[in-house]
Amino acid sequence: MKVFKTPLSRNSWLTLMVIICMLTLFFSTNVMAQQRNQVVRLAKIQVDPAQLEKYNTALKEQMTTAVSVEPGVLTYYAVADKSNPSHITILEIYADTAAYNSHIKTPHFKKYKDTVQGMVKSLELTDVNLIGVAKKPDM
Amino acid sequence: MKVFKTPLSRNSWLTLMVIICMLTLFFSTNVMAQQRNQVVRLAKIQVDPAQLEKYNTALKEQMTTAVSVEPGVLTYYAVADKSNPSHITILEIYADTAAYNSHIKTPHFKKYKDTVQGMVKSLELTDVNLIGVAKKPDM
Repeated sequence: MKVFKTPLSRNSWLTLMVIICMLTLFFSTNVMAQQRNQVVRLAKIQVDPAQLEKYNTALKEQMTTAVSVEPGVLTYYAVADKSNPSHITILEIYADTAAYNSHIKTPHFKKYKDTVQGMVKSLELTDVNLIGVAKKPDM
Repeated sequence: MKVFKTPLSRNSWLTLMVIICMLTLFFSTNVMAQQRNQVVRLAKIQVDPAQLEKYNTALKEQMTTAVSVEPGVLTYYAVADKSNPSHITILEIYADTAAYNSHIKTPHFKKYKDTVQGMVKSLELTDVNLIGVAKKPDM
């Protein structure tokens, strides 16, 4: 009785299946390792209300430049309390510690720090772990 | 002297430019209106440490289901303080108030609320505005 009707032998099929399984395992482990290494942080910033517009402009410029020119700067979400817009929270995601250490040495980050020096009243950094992310594909 | 060397007349060019400007303005205004209507929120939750694993499972199930079945549920990022994993912050983005009101009536949201009722020690909701988002295309 012939079970396998394709040109590949039973052994070839088995070998192929094992290779596919190993590759799948390799890539999924790799994705998990990448996520485990990520540096994720919440920055809570209180800004001088009189300088809020200038601060927000500097912040947006820093975020956009860092994400577009640095491979390891992955995500920024900056939000302001509705009832107190000078209370700002930023969710930051970097690929790993090396990416973060390289980020704080860039000219655009140093320019941001210099610009906002007299605008920031307090800064609180909290290291966090991602529990999960769910979002629409276009978000 | 002939300035415009294409088959279109000077007036046709002007009309075309005006139409392009109006379309650009229309679409960019539309995008801004969509973002202005978004409901963006930070939820700060303290969970009973003894029930943290069960809580995180219920939270992830709620987030994933809501984003996949509800058109107006756009984004969730859930993070836990590294130094105190039972302190959780969730960044939530809904398309508009109607989407949020519809969300809290869904079976999966009610199931989540019932499941975590005895696990949540405190819940603080802060309405926020997006200052900006910057992220890699694959994030």
